[in-house]
Parts: sequence; C-alpha cells; structure tokens
Amino acid sequence: MSKDIIGFTKRIVEFRDARDWKQFHNPKDLSLSLVLEAAEVMEHFQWKNVEEMEKHVRESKEEIGAELADVLYWVLLMSHDLEIDILAALDKKQTKNEEKYPVEKARGKHTKYNKL
Amino acid sequence: MSKDIIGFTKRIVEFRDARDWKQFHNPKDLSLSLVLEAAEVMEHFQWKNVEEMEKHVRESKEEIGAELADVLYWVLLMSHDLEIDILAALDKKQTKNEEKYPVEKARGKHTKYNKL
Amino acid sequence: MSKDIIGFTKRIVEFRDARDWKQFHNPKDLSLSLVLEAAEVMEHFQWKNVEEMEKHVRESKEEIGAELADVLYWVLLMSHDLEIDILAALDKKQTKNEEKYPVEKARGKHTKYNKL
Amino acid sequence: MSKDIIGFTKRIVEFRDARDWKQFHNPKDLSLSLVLEAAEVMEHFQWKNVEEMEKHVRESKEEIGAELADVLYWVLLMSHDLEIDILAALDKKQTKNEEKYPVEKARGKHTKYNKL
Repeated sequence: MSKDIIGFTKRIVEFRDARDWKQFHNPKDLSLSLVLEAAEVMEHFQWKNVEEMEKHVRESKEEIGAELADVLYWVLLMSHDLEIDILAALDKKQTKNEEKYPVEKARGKHTKYNKL
Repeated sequence: MSKDIIGFTKRIVEFRDARDWKQFHNPKDLSLSLVLEAAEVMEHFQWKNVEEMEKHVRESKEEIGAELADVLYWVLLMSHDLEIDILAALDKKQTKNEEKYPVEKARGKHTKYNKL
Repeated sequence: MSKDIIGFTKRIVEFRDARDWKQFHNPKDLSLSLVLEAAEVMEHFQWKNVEEMEKHVRESKEEIGAELADVLYWVLLMSHDLEIDILAALDKKQTKNEEKYPVEKARGKHTKYNKL
Repeated sequence: MSKDIIGFTKRIVEFRDARDWKQFHNPKDLSLSLVLEAAEVMEHFQWKNVEEMEKHVRESKEEIGAELADVLYWVLLMSHDLEIDILAALDKKQTKNEEKYPVEKARGKHTKYNKL
C-alpha cells in the first residue's frame, strides 16, 4: 500500500465509502471532528510542566502519535471531499509564511507578522 | 523541492530553525496552535446550512485550503519534534479503525465503535 | 450556600485552594481546560442531524448540563484568578453587541457585524 | 437591568429573538460557537511564558474579559435553549467534584480522579 499522502487519502476514502459514511460528512461535521481530535492531542499536555511533558512524550509516544494520526486523517478526508490539493495548499502557505516572517525581523520572537 | 511529507517536514523545520523559534515549541504550545488552526477551519462553516456550505466551499476554497494547510503544518512540526513517524502512526491507526468498524456492523451508522 | 455567581466562584476557589492546585493554574492551562470542556459539549452533537440532536438533548440533558457546568467552572475560576469581573464584562460586551448588530440590519441574517 | 445569571440570560435571549436568530441556533452551531470563543481566550496565551502572561493579563485585561464574556454568553444561551438550569448543574457537578477529589488524596497533584 502506498505510504504517501495520495495513497493514504485513497485508503481513508475507501474505508469511509465502504461504510456508507459519506452521508454524515458535511464540512461542518468534518471540521468539528478535526477540532475534537486536535483537542485530544492537547489534552495530553494539560497541567504538565516541561519536565512532565518530556517524560510523558517518552512514555506515551504511541498514544500521542495515534491522536496526531486522527488529526491527519480528517485533514486528508476533508481535503479530498472539498477537492483541495493539500500539499499544493501547504506549499503556497509556506511560501507566504517565508515572506511574512523574514529571518532578520522574526528571529527569536513569537510575534505575529502584522506586529513585527 | 520534495513535494511529499518528508520534504515538507524538512522545509518547515528549516523555516522554524532559521528563525530560532524552537525555544517556543514545547508540546503544549504546539498542540494549542494545532487546536487554534483547526478552530479556524471550523469557523468557515459556523451557522451555515448545507447549501451555504457548498457555496462557501466553491467561493473560498483557497482560504479553506490555507487553514487546512496550517493544521497540517503543526501536525508535521509536532510529529518531527516528538520523533513520531506520522505516516506509520496513521497506518497503524487506520488498521485499528478497520478492525474496530467492521463493514457489516458499521455501515450507514455514525455510532462509536464501543456502542456498535 | 449562595446560588449566584459570586457564591459559586467562592466555592470553586475554596475547592481549588484546599487541594493546593493554584500552582498549576496559570492562564495558559486554565484556557486550555476551558477549550477542552467546550469541546466535550460539542462532541455531544457530532454527526447528529436536527432530529437526532433533539432526541439526544431530551435523553442526555443531565450529561450535557454537566459539560456546560464544566465550562462555566473554568470561566468563573479564570475570571477570579485574572481579577476580571465577569458579569461587568458580559454587560459591557452585550452593550457592544447591541450596537454592532442593529435590529433592522441584522434581522434574520447570520452575517458578522463587519460585513452587515 | 438585573445583574445576575437569570437577568443576563433574559437579556441575551431577547437580543437574539429581536434579531430572529433562533433559526440558526441548533445545538451543534451553539456548541461550535462556544468552542470558537474558548479558543479566542486561549489564543491570548499562545507562546507566552509565565512573565509574558502576567504582563499580558495586566495590559489586556479588558480584551480577555470580553472573550471570557463571549464564552459565558454561549453557556447562558445554550443552557436556556436546552432547558438546562446551569446553576443547578454547576451545583451538582461541584458536589461530585468534591467527592471525586478528596482533599487528602488530591492535594498538590494534577492527577485525574480515576488515577488518584
């Protein structure tokens, strides 16, 4: 099975369609699911300080990876359904980021580009 | 430039490191950023009914794609920093999903696997 | 026990302080917790259509109420810690909303005030 | 105007109904809005360390209060629409919390009750 984005998208869409779940997959519920999975990633780090996070990452890498995979799952399925070429979109966005955050102005600061 | 996940991850990490932003990128803030970007995707569909969503997707595909790209950006950067092979994690998760949701039981239902 | 916002805030703060949890309650983790609880409210309505939501509200009112209470818990605790008078803030915000959305312009539309 | 929860709920519902917005206010979109506003609270603390958060709270108390008020707005409106007595729900939830987290077991720990 193809191990790239196109291959995974195909696998996920086939999984979905075999279960006749397309009927539930409007953009609102897809994006809601995306948020819920992102929140599950974040929950792993609630209340933890830096040392506790490092320990948790070492001990629960598999679980955190599974949550991140859930986020990626919805990114891929949503991109498919909305006919968005997600890698082209990332390429474009990243090119913009490189312009919005010039190295000399942005170095060492977590300031938004519009306040740099 | 490589157009696959590994190529994009490399590009994003180099972009980040050139700006000396690693110091801010603890897992808590990375996951918080992931949630914020997922929320921005979801905001596109707030209050809209099915027809309004279809119209919005047609008219704002570029903006929605940019938001989904932001989510993917944090998935890739976070996976890199936590040393998670995100495609292996997705492969594993998807294999589990296929077991948890057998076609004959799950077809046409949006029920969680533990209530099927 | 007082059944208003001031009484509940006092009760929650005393509950927290008796457990020596103030040390974990920086604004980032408080707001992260607020998001997680809001996400749990939202999860109740994932994939459901209007009829299914109505049925679910009838059958799970207690659970949904408990999740909404969790959100309110963090609103009150966070307002306390940041020395924000939350009812004064709501009064102010609502006065602004009334100006930003004049009845004659906003009636029957889910358009943001800056696009009305 | 009444400055308590019941008074504010009345004011918010009248504001909404005067604009004929009830038609958009199904539980899914209400909870989605709740999450979006909670995310806006959280965004205030993205990337900031403890000192930066303290400074930000001092300098932007009004803005943060307005975001927290937005969260409370949706808690009150949603509770109204779903016929949930939110203060009774909070009372009940808090009574449970007091049982789930006995002082002697929970003191100084950010552990979930089921792992205490």
